[in-house]
Amino acid sequence: MNDAAPLLDRESALASDTKLELKVWLRLLTCTTLIEREVRQSLRERFDTTIARFDLLSQLDRAPKGLTMGELSSRLMVTNGNVTGLTDALVREGLVSRAPEPGDRRSLRIRLTAAGKQFFDGMTPVHEGWIDRLMAGMTRADMAHLLELLGRLKQSLAAAGAQK
Amino acid sequence: MNDAAPLLDRESALASDTKLELKVWLRLLTCTTLIEREVRQSLRERFDTTIARFDLLSQLDRAPKGLTMGELSSRLMVTNGNVTGLTDALVREGLVSRAPEPGDRRSLRIRLTAAGKQFFDGMTPVHEGWIDRLMAGMTRADMAHLLELLGRLKQSLAAAGAQK
Repeated sequence: MNDAAPLLDRESALASDTKLELKVWLRLLTCTTLIEREVRQSLRERFDTTIARFDLLSQLDRAPKGLTMGELSSRLMVTNGNVTGLTDALVREGLVSRAPEPGDRRSLRIRLTAAGKQFFDGMTPVHEGWIDRLMAGMTRADMAHLLELLGRLKQSLAAAGAQK
Repeated sequence: MNDAAPLLDRESALASDTKLELKVWLRLLTCTTLIEREVRQSLRERFDTTIARFDLLSQLDRAPKGLTMGELSSRLMVTNGNVTGLTDALVREGLVSRAPEPGDRRSLRIRLTAAGKQFFDGMTPVHEGWIDRLMAGMTRADMAHLLELLGRLKQSLAAAGAQK
């Protein structure tokens, strides 16, 4: 076992006979929390923006035809209400546009505006640099293996009905 | 590569040339979000409580002598303000006690009460069962390896200064 350096976190003082499943979950949560905290702080300091906004813009950036509100909330794994509030703000700031779907006026389609695209393109390489730096202590082989094992976990979660 | 079943999440429509670091981060975030969502919903339905409360009680359960507010916020990786609000509520409900440190009256020590211990002991096996079920699709070997790789990631994060 390759234990991490002592760190006060959710794993602190965990009994040595703690179940493997629980250890994996707590370490997963610790890693996610640490990365999120770094990214949150860096986005605020460098771009005066939030993770939620960055995530929403990144989904739209990968969808040249835009996304419906439902698609956005699925991909971001948040509620429709969350997406609505966030979209309202981004529309006001001119970073995204929102228009009724042709043929289905109850459905709204969200797209990046040119200003939104420009703003996001400015953040992308910087954000990638932060993630690279945080993972710089891992080998490529370890990262590839971690990605594969997280893929198996994701399959396990889907099989257990955690998908929706 | 053992890719997960199609699922609308943060990895959707990711370009195939996306950097490995970013893929790992997005998949890590997806897995954490899925597990958190399940645990949040189950805690609410079964015990009418929240993840934040469960986490705080679980830290105190592992600390027979109690923890100071500072230790609690470090281990839970949240701000002092968050811990204070949460502790206020749990004190009112009689689940934890809060008293000045002998010899350092500016510092407060939090402990589980007997009622808090009883409440937490009732949740523990049920919570473990949820995590077991979510990871049931993974082999022991995969879980052990995942724990090890997450340990290396945690070391990398600490080395990159994400610890504090």
